[in-house]
Amino acid sequence: MQKERAEGGLTIEAIAERFEHVRAETERIVSPLQPADFEAQSMPDCSPAKWHLAHTTWFFDVFVLAAFEPGYVEVDPAFKVLFNSYYTHVGERHLRRERGLLTRPSLDEVQRYRQIVEQRVRTLVDRLDQWPAADAQRVLSRVLLGTHHEQQHQELLLTDIKHLFSRNAINPCYAPDDGTSPTGTLTPVTYTRFDSGLHQIGHAGQAFAFDNEGPRHTYHVASFELANRLVTNGEFTEFVRDRGYQRPELWLDEGFATCQQLGWNAPLYWRGAPGEFRQFTLSGERELAPHEPVSHVSQFEADAFARWAGQRLPTEQEWEVAASGRKVDGHFLRSHQVHPRPSLASGALDQLFGDCWEWTSSAYLPYPGYRPATGALGEYNGKFMSNQMVLRGGSCATPLGHIRATYRNFFRSADRWQFSGFRLARDTR
Amino acid sequence: MQKERAEGGLTIEAIAERFEHVRAETERIVSPLQPADFEAQSMPDCSPAKWHLAHTTWFFDVFVLAAFEPGYVEVDPAFKVLFNSYYTHVGERHLRRERGLLTRPSLDEVQRYRQIVEQRVRTLVDRLDQWPAADAQRVLSRVLLGTHHEQQHQELLLTDIKHLFSRNAINPCYAPDDGTSPTGTLTPVTYTRFDSGLHQIGHAGQAFAFDNEGPRHTYHVASFELANRLVTNGEFTEFVRDRGYQRPELWLDEGFATCQQLGWNAPLYWRGAPGEFRQFTLSGERELAPHEPVSHVSQFEADAFARWAGQRLPTEQEWEVAASGRKVDGHFLRSHQVHPRPSLASGALDQLFGDCWEWTSSAYLPYPGYRPATGALGEYNGKFMSNQMVLRGGSCATPLGHIRATYRNFFRSADRWQFSGFRLARDTR
Amino acid sequence: MQKERAEGGLTIEAIAERFEHVRAETERIVSPLQPADFEAQSMPDCSPAKWHLAHTTWFFDVFVLAAFEPGYVEVDPAFKVLFNSYYTHVGERHLRRERGLLTRPSLDEVQRYRQIVEQRVRTLVDRLDQWPAADAQRVLSRVLLGTHHEQQHQELLLTDIKHLFSRNAINPCYAPDDGTSPTGTLTPVTYTRFDSGLHQIGHAGQAFAFDNEGPRHTYHVASFELANRLVTNGEFTEFVRDRGYQRPELWLDEGFATCQQLGWNAPLYWRGAPGEFRQFTLSGERELAPHEPVSHVSQFEADAFARWAGQRLPTEQEWEVAASGRKVDGHFLRSHQVHPRPSLASGALDQLFGDCWEWTSSAYLPYPGYRPATGALGEYNGKFMSNQMVLRGGSCATPLGHIRATYRNFFRSADRWQFSGFRLARDTR
Amino acid sequence: MQKERAEGGLTIEAIAERFEHVRAETERIVSPLQPADFEAQSMPDCSPAKWHLAHTTWFFDVFVLAAFEPGYVEVDPAFKVLFNSYYTHVGERHLRRERGLLTRPSLDEVQRYRQIVEQRVRTLVDRLDQWPAADAQRVLSRVLLGTHHEQQHQELLLTDIKHLFSRNAINPCYAPDDGTSPTGTLTPVTYTRFDSGLHQIGHAGQAFAFDNEGPRHTYHVASFELANRLVTNGEFTEFVRDRGYQRPELWLDEGFATCQQLGWNAPLYWRGAPGEFRQFTLSGERELAPHEPVSHVSQFEADAFARWAGQRLPTEQEWEVAASGRKVDGHFLRSHQVHPRPSLASGALDQLFGDCWEWTSSAYLPYPGYRPATGALGEYNGKFMSNQMVLRGGSCATPLGHIRATYRNFFRSADRWQFSGFRLARDTR
Repeated sequence: MQKERAEGGLTIEAIAERFEHVRAETERIVSPLQPADFEAQSMPDCSPAKWHLAHTTWFFDVFVLAAFEPGYVEVDPAFKVLFNSYYTHVGERHLRRERGLLTRPSLDEVQRYRQIVEQRVRTLVDRLDQWPAADAQRVLSRVLLGTHHEQQHQELLLTDIKHLFSRNAINPCYAPDDGTSPTGTLTPVTYTRFDSGLHQIGHAGQAFAFDNEGPRHTYHVASFELANRLVTNGEFTEFVRDRGYQRPELWLDEGFATCQQLGWNAPLYWRGAPGEFRQFTLSGERELAPHEPVSHVSQFEADAFARWAGQRLPTEQEWEVAASGRKVDGHFLRSHQVHPRPSLASGALDQLFGDCWEWTSSAYLPYPGYRPATGALGEYNGKFMSNQMVLRGGSCATPLGHIRATYRNFFRSADRWQFSGFRLARDTR
Repeated sequence: MQKERAEGGLTIEAIAERFEHVRAETERIVSPLQPADFEAQSMPDCSPAKWHLAHTTWFFDVFVLAAFEPGYVEVDPAFKVLFNSYYTHVGERHLRRERGLLTRPSLDEVQRYRQIVEQRVRTLVDRLDQWPAADAQRVLSRVLLGTHHEQQHQELLLTDIKHLFSRNAINPCYAPDDGTSPTGTLTPVTYTRFDSGLHQIGHAGQAFAFDNEGPRHTYHVASFELANRLVTNGEFTEFVRDRGYQRPELWLDEGFATCQQLGWNAPLYWRGAPGEFRQFTLSGERELAPHEPVSHVSQFEADAFARWAGQRLPTEQEWEVAASGRKVDGHFLRSHQVHPRPSLASGALDQLFGDCWEWTSSAYLPYPGYRPATGALGEYNGKFMSNQMVLRGGSCATPLGHIRATYRNFFRSADRWQFSGFRLARDTR
Repeated sequence: MQKERAEGGLTIEAIAERFEHVRAETERIVSPLQPADFEAQSMPDCSPAKWHLAHTTWFFDVFVLAAFEPGYVEVDPAFKVLFNSYYTHVGERHLRRERGLLTRPSLDEVQRYRQIVEQRVRTLVDRLDQWPAADAQRVLSRVLLGTHHEQQHQELLLTDIKHLFSRNAINPCYAPDDGTSPTGTLTPVTYTRFDSGLHQIGHAGQAFAFDNEGPRHTYHVASFELANRLVTNGEFTEFVRDRGYQRPELWLDEGFATCQQLGWNAPLYWRGAPGEFRQFTLSGERELAPHEPVSHVSQFEADAFARWAGQRLPTEQEWEVAASGRKVDGHFLRSHQVHPRPSLASGALDQLFGDCWEWTSSAYLPYPGYRPATGALGEYNGKFMSNQMVLRGGSCATPLGHIRATYRNFFRSADRWQFSGFRLARDTR
Repeated sequence: MQKERAEGGLTIEAIAERFEHVRAETERIVSPLQPADFEAQSMPDCSPAKWHLAHTTWFFDVFVLAAFEPGYVEVDPAFKVLFNSYYTHVGERHLRRERGLLTRPSLDEVQRYRQIVEQRVRTLVDRLDQWPAADAQRVLSRVLLGTHHEQQHQELLLTDIKHLFSRNAINPCYAPDDGTSPTGTLTPVTYTRFDSGLHQIGHAGQAFAFDNEGPRHTYHVASFELANRLVTNGEFTEFVRDRGYQRPELWLDEGFATCQQLGWNAPLYWRGAPGEFRQFTLSGERELAPHEPVSHVSQFEADAFARWAGQRLPTEQEWEVAASGRKVDGHFLRSHQVHPRPSLASGALDQLFGDCWEWTSSAYLPYPGYRPATGALGEYNGKFMSNQMVLRGGSCATPLGHIRATYRNFFRSADRWQFSGFRLARDTR
């Protein structure tokens, strides 16, 4: 196989470059952390930064090196267990909720693990031009998957650090606010109409996508209207003021029960009371900015707000119909300024990509004809298709180049620690 | 309004007759119970029989009499709270998991409550011929809703009694097996093919349906094949023997976690070990009958079995496409013999109605354009549209006349105390 | 053995008469109940009245008839499991927290079980005059134990019914207040001084006592002073008003944590707020009577009140020193009026017996030299000697003839559903 | 006040020297740790090493400097909350179970906090010779308390590190076994008899003791016999082999329930099965040494073993009678070899001090006449006097100079992460 040209679209050089870029970006993300910040796990859903560093490396170790490297020898036999997230095909794994107890191996050892595996992946990829093309493609597509996997963890690194810092009364700061968030007049809410009809939903083509984005299939969408921007902190404050958290009629039954049980009365990271709300951010605690999109809300809160507003959440198909064919542009993870920004554009359909993941009203279920891969990688997405809801569009913590219109993220209805917001939709009259 | 003819299809006489029939049927269902059997609540999901008797009456009391009866006076002010299930619009309600503590009012008092409300509903309906037609129609449709509501509770009465009796080491018998279950050769599994295309899904027309069955809407279904009968106890035993409950790769992640946590290793009510399984039924404990449909499985178990068998569960739309236009016939609640029966037919697509509710792979979500009713009755279905899965077709505990092809039942993926089974589906090649 | 005269103090006639009396008293206690009231279990610590009726009979069945009756045949083999409370030597037992699910056997069957066993015990005892004296004595002491066991359950019957009724919004009434509670001037609090010295603590002599009351042993008690009556509702209201439930410095650490976790802000069965407190009683809900002893408090609350008042709880030895040699007199279970009464006496040391069990500061532990009986009856008391506290003196629900100065009752520090109150003590200066 | 001579026994020089010694010892204990090991909290009962370092410093900061230092200024206002353990008088405190989330302040900052406070305490103490004697004494006794407080945390540092390391599959080693544990013939079990009589129990005199060790009081002890050494791993293995963990009749009721619920079938840190038991130690995992004392057992297990062996646990008074007047000598925390050692002495009453804390049958309750100090330090011991059991004698993790015959340690009956063992006692015949 030639380096420059690969069948199926994966060139050795493009993959090698992406690999370098993604690995370096992970290091950049953790660069503001102090050593201790790498170690703690603030809740079972989160993982320590050190674990993210190790696990993303483990992924290349197990699914690339162990599978394809000639004469493969493992770096450390214990790592197979310690840094396995959930792949039962790979064997035993360390208890998820006790990841914060792995003070050994040390951060230095994990960094060394990263370097060794990285170098060996580089060497392997570098020599693929001497492999039969089909074999080389198999390796390349695994490496590519590994980079996308690592990009998913880049976002989790940031949301997990944010959650950890939020539990500390001294409000640690990941990176100071550099004042580059734009200001101006908030885009007024308008609705864009989409006509009813048959659409092709899901990923098609050679470019990378996760298995859960396909197969592409025909879907009938009734006409609908979609709000042109995300719901803001200011709008959500009105819901709070109107006793939205105290009125069961606005909520799904399970949502209100969750709300009561967990004592919710505002989005996660909001502090204080209406009129003087403050917000914990990756730049520390500060005043709530009314024009910024509301984030860190559960699907239950998004749904209740929509009912209160006399609207509803869009389905994932509606969202995809609206986003399909548009340029993937927006406020993504590019600097250490990881916080959603206000919509100041005057045009239609702003913020579809970036800023906040958008809750939909769709359950995360397989598309018609979906079949997971065989072996351990079949566990990547398929086994989580129960009792979770789909989010679309990426957030301010999503790396550029990782998101697309067909991308399906998923969390439980009550989850709040992601940069999750929402936009409204409505039926046409 | 004339008694014989009503606009919109609801004649006074038909409704009056249905009301009499349903109320009498409830009494017939509880007739084998001893007084103490009416009182106990075996888990928070279940309710005591006495509570079911009272709550179905409360429904007519609050939504028919209080709303429409001239000069309405309540039978007992406490009942409004004690027998409210989940209608927050109606006000306070007794704690669901403590329904078994309501030793007062006594069963006699509840029966008296039934009779009083019943008589007042009768009188009200009887005089509707002197009401303006539109007003009369409103009353009639509420009474009709009340009868369907009561039919839902008839099924719950039976499944709740079964659960209660199953917790008693002396294996109480609701009604002895009368030996009328048919025997013969089990229908072999074949698959019926359905072509891809646009379908109208959901209820249409004047006949009664719950709000969650509409609006009728266009849905694109890809071609698929559907098994002609339910999976049997014998087939499910093979799954158990093949260590199905011990193999995480066969399960949804949440399903396997549930399985481990609750110690499942067979369907609910199965006792003993493979080769000598016994089963608790409403006729007491007896040998597991291999040709009978497997019942009392969760959606997680149904999904795992399907994966083990190399197939999948149907979506609710696929099921409806298959069932649509067929005669609603099958083994329903007609006698005290409440247990699913084997498929001995040789033809295609047996057991679509009756025997066991069929788990689908569809989450219980609103159809496009769905809007709940205003007021308390808007809470009937809509607020439960989160993290539940759809079941179709009714069971051996479903009253005849209550089920239709568009009927959407819903339970959580882990629920097992209903007569829940499943049939397999597969993609076409 | 002669009927009139028995070695060791147990005459056949006295035992037979006690047996008749106790069994009849149990029937008298449950006489105000409606059939459904017999069935429900309002929390795991409580048991349904039907279960109490059956279990007290089971005790005679297993420990008297099965042990001594010639040609013993069991009434029903299932009862051995269903009505065993906690005797692991006897074999399997029904799950404690699911006693409310035993709708079968019916109350009628349980009553029949009572009558059959009762008659067979009568017959057995009646013929003991023809047995060798030592053997007859063994039977008699078991029957005697059975009557004391049943008297313990008489008190539990009442406290369990009270708890059950308290969970019902319609406030069922066990027996109407007959207005016989005395009124007058509350005894002012004074303290009686006891000098330091060696005392004999624990039961001695031939009369009946539980094994945990012995062996009698020497104990050195430092000088102390003991309040002459129980703390009252009025006094406890002052503690509530003074924010006693909100001030951690008044509480044991575990006590305050319990208080926060369970949301306590007043004794069990108090309703409303200071100034308008109402109280649920076995005669329904009524105004809180300030002169009545406070009851249904945990040891944690008693201890916090004592600290707030600058005093302390007495040890069980101090209490016994004070009570020893006094006449066992007070307000006991004699009628259906089961509620503590105010101290209106002017003299010293009132209410030592009856009204409310008195929390002490002593852990429930074995006395020096304690050895449980061999076999199942060794489980009667000994295995509960961990993490419980001693209460002394009996209550308004304790049958006369059941209590003595050496009697050691025991509950967990957080338990509140017994008629538990307290009196203060203090060191001498 | 002169430096050399102080009223009441506290000389400035002695206290200053003790302060230096204890602070240095803490640093020595943590010297084998890697940076990440300082951060993690493996269960709510444990604390991160960094937190121990900070909290022991906080104690001097709040109770010495803030109370007595002229012109006191706090090092960091946040520390008052972050490093408060349980003193409600001092104000708010960080959630106990989330101590592992305090990645900030960093270890370096905590070390700096230690140095600053240390230096300021040194300066304060150094100048006390110019203070009025009574004032100086108050300061000195607080500093002395602070050193004893820190010694308690030295032991916890070690048991918490052991627990943390035990949760890591790679079995981290705190310090390699240096092979200095003595070998030889195990002391055979004999019993020493103590006659009945009045004893003075509790601390007396000028030397330091915690408030819960007094007041000294008269206590009558019946004659008893005490085993001359601790129960060994080998003896405990016999209990395991004899199905001790499966036999409810050997256990307190709450003990067996705990055992079932937590799945205990051997002491904490034992791995494998009888015949091949291995043990996790601070030197990593190794074969179980049969002659070493059994450690890391709960009081429930100790009690069950004693019942199985036909003996019992001693009371705390019996233990004190036996230990009183003996030289405080044994295997304490002197090196990094923190593991109990076998009794190879031939004489009577070995291992009373050191090796393992010894569970007694006594509940942790106040001695007659006990009064906690006023203010925050009154919370030191008194508020934990509920539902805990007394342990005596210190362990291999207890610093020399910290333990005495009257010392009362206390843990809950189910706690196992301390170096807790036991010796047997019995009544005399």
